[in-house]
Amino acid sequence: MTVVKRAVIAVEGAEASARHDELAEEGPLEIRLATTPLAVLMRTPGSDAALALGFALTEGIVLSPDEIESVDPVGDGDRVELRLAAGVHIDPEKFRRSAYVSSSCGVCGKASIDAVRVAGRRPPAGPVLDPSMPRRWIAALEGSQPGFARSGGLHAAAVCSPDGTVLAAAEDVGRHNAVDKAIGALATIRWPLGEVALAVSGRISFEITQKAAVVGIPVVAGVSAASSLAAELGAELGLTVIGFTRGDRFVVYSGAERLGGLD
Amino acid sequence: MTVVKRAVIAVEGAEASARHDELAEEGPLEIRLATTPLAVLMRTPGSDAALALGFALTEGIVLSPDEIESVDPVGDGDRVELRLAAGVHIDPEKFRRSAYVSSSCGVCGKASIDAVRVAGRRPPAGPVLDPSMPRRWIAALEGSQPGFARSGGLHAAAVCSPDGTVLAAAEDVGRHNAVDKAIGALATIRWPLGEVALAVSGRISFEITQKAAVVGIPVVAGVSAASSLAAELGAELGLTVIGFTRGDRFVVYSGAERLGGLD
Repeated sequence: MTVVKRAVIAVEGAEASARHDELAEEGPLEIRLATTPLAVLMRTPGSDAALALGFALTEGIVLSPDEIESVDPVGDGDRVELRLAAGVHIDPEKFRRSAYVSSSCGVCGKASIDAVRVAGRRPPAGPVLDPSMPRRWIAALEGSQPGFARSGGLHAAAVCSPDGTVLAAAEDVGRHNAVDKAIGALATIRWPLGEVALAVSGRISFEITQKAAVVGIPVVAGVSAASSLAAELGAELGLTVIGFTRGDRFVVYSGAERLGGLD
Repeated sequence: MTVVKRAVIAVEGAEASARHDELAEEGPLEIRLATTPLAVLMRTPGSDAALALGFALTEGIVLSPDEIESVDPVGDGDRVELRLAAGVHIDPEKFRRSAYVSSSCGVCGKASIDAVRVAGRRPPAGPVLDPSMPRRWIAALEGSQPGFARSGGLHAAAVCSPDGTVLAAAEDVGRHNAVDKAIGALATIRWPLGEVALAVSGRISFEITQKAAVVGIPVVAGVSAASSLAAELGAELGLTVIGFTRGDRFVVYSGAERLGGLD
């Protein structure tokens, strides 16, 4: 359930008519590490366990999915608790956001400008990508956006193999949440992620790029623009950042060495 | 300066060519209340004083612009300090985000789900709006987006009078920042804001609606969808929330009583 029906008034010129539209659903989710609150996300309900796991991974709270023993829904659907695996010790205060993280926000709660950057990994050199790949990833992404067509208000993210297969996909009112849900869903069945690409429906910001870097995803592709800092982070860490993917055209901001077969 | 030039590789089919594109600029700004850090925003540099004042207003940190004595840039362009007017006492710890607020995020740092809601005002009953107004606001908004055409990566917000005049407008990589910049710029010359409308280029989320409500703006209009929680907050507080404004068509999610002249 990613949309809710709501009575609206549709206006055209001076004519008004009542109807029911489908709106992207939005509500708060509190993520706890054991019983310590880490963050409250404004998200689209659904796939909350994947969202919590993905958030823990892309924010660098845990370093791999096997550091998490379980992700348990508690309360009446607005809270999940992460339980650490035996032998894993993390000080939740270090990551506590204190903390309400918005639907469009992924890395809130850092103590200073210097702490904005979570440790991103320099991904492995591969894979070598055919220039037809970005188009296939975006086509796959668009094929996994049923909620957008209905509400016009959801972002989508997909984690794809180089050949264009969708390994995991998600929709959310927040573009960071969509990324975390897709990564969290895939991480339970596949890790590490050094051979996959992240495709996103929205703009490529610093934080989207950083989330990919933190979990070791080497390629980020989108249909829209990248920000200056996203391009800089991509160049610094050796990520391939691709924007404006439309048909067989796209723009490479960094990491062009992964693209083979270009004239 | 809202865009920066950067070398990219443009690909079409198997052909690649080097060129320079203009990217939306993104960088961190720390906002302090006196010397206490409140938040770090990922924003497009420029209009930082307006951003800091708007943030303080729309987050409910101060209740009116005259509670702020000055907004001073410090450091090398990545920090601003808000100074309170004589006699105004605010505990910065109450509002401290601890705190890194992303480019797309406005209300980070709340301690719990219950605290997600800042006290929104129920705006006055007026103004009565002609149904041709949303089209004019959006046209005005689009006319104030020079950076979007250049970078494809900036959000815009405009505060407009009911007749469609732009009172203040701003662009930013973060849609919440664009709203804060426009409101902050207007607040220095006009207050209260009970007779203006907020027009936004992006989706209308809970937080965008809440920011309008906190400063008493009665109308929010956008070109895209509203989320379920934005519509609910609008209905609860009596705000007029308008989405999908395209030509003379739009959708009213709440507060339709402000619209006159409809059949």
